[in-house]
Amino acid sequence: MTEPIGGPEVQRLIQNLAKLPGFGPRSARKAALHLLKQREALMAPLADSMADALAAIETCSTCGNIDTRSPCGICSDNRRDPRLVVVVEDVSDVWALERAGVIEGRYHILGGVLSPLDGIGPEQLKIPALVERITRDDVREVILALNATVEGQSTAHYIADTLSEREIAVTRLAQGVPVGGELDYLDDGTLAAAIRSRRTV
Amino acid sequence: MTEPIGGPEVQRLIQNLAKLPGFGPRSARKAALHLLKQREALMAPLADSMADALAAIETCSTCGNIDTRSPCGICSDNRRDPRLVVVVEDVSDVWALERAGVIEGRYHILGGVLSPLDGIGPEQLKIPALVERITRDDVREVILALNATVEGQSTAHYIADTLSEREIAVTRLAQGVPVGGELDYLDDGTLAAAIRSRRTV
Repeated sequence: MTEPIGGPEVQRLIQNLAKLPGFGPRSARKAALHLLKQREALMAPLADSMADALAAIETCSTCGNIDTRSPCGICSDNRRDPRLVVVVEDVSDVWALERAGVIEGRYHILGGVLSPLDGIGPEQLKIPALVERITRDDVREVILALNATVEGQSTAHYIADTLSEREIAVTRLAQGVPVGGELDYLDDGTLAAAIRSRRTV
Repeated sequence: MTEPIGGPEVQRLIQNLAKLPGFGPRSARKAALHLLKQREALMAPLADSMADALAAIETCSTCGNIDTRSPCGICSDNRRDPRLVVVVEDVSDVWALERAGVIEGRYHILGGVLSPLDGIGPEQLKIPALVERITRDDVREVILALNATVEGQSTAHYIADTLSEREIAVTRLAQGVPVGGELDYLDDGTLAAAIRSRRTV
């Protein structure tokens, strides 16, 4: 009636929370209230961890990963083969592959996929930097670990084309039935790919 | 493989975000990444607004509301009748009623509902403070704006009983068809209440 509830501080908190992925005005209000009711137990630690992350985190100049140092922990880990480079779209893909713990090489984060309609060409992604890195580090294999979407696959094609004249292996992830997957629930494209790439038992 | 991705700062940020309502480990990871990728545009303002709120916000000693001052803006607004007190369960109910802009009195936030099994009796809620406030401010009407749940209604009954010997009006919210509601979609209890409380046109 008179002024916004809780004053400008609360309103600004709600507005900023509403920018989180999956949040709308209603869930932001709920989260703000939750934080405001547990100021010492919840809001203070969250605010601290954000300030810590802001102070500590930087973007790796080599691969584009997010870490407390640049080059990042992966790029400066000597046990990881610098001549095997896994190309991914986003930092979240690095996290997913690291959780799986299967990569013995290093990463190269494109920061997106080719999308000519949105004005995203090779220069907007880190494709020239990838080419340069391949020469510099004498890379022997590039694994294109891009999403199995139209944009992901056309980006993979573009990179494979760009690298076709070089004497390096360019591979992509296998397509097929996910572990634990039931055939009845899979789409036709996945089933067709699984049949095409079938292997001798 | 070697150490957690992004170092302890990122892990702590994810853990703290996971405590927000409606968040799990996966959505917390997504939100953390979103913030980390837009450090200046998103994470810095959010961290600032949390620090501001932490510094500014306190709990109103009179009604239990959250505001930049105590007594809160509502309790110190002289245009609002101090002799009309709206009893609610939570701060979010104050926000909801203030959005509707229908309350000309002040609030009293219980901080929960009676729940003997969880050890929540009248002393754990702000019921003694309510009784004291009624005497002190010579309150003439108490509106019990509690949720229409079993716990909310038994809490309302308890408060009405406690106040029955006093010469004050104790009212509760009307039950009936919500504005815009379709009869076909309403539960039997709501329909029965709407019929029982029917009014002459």
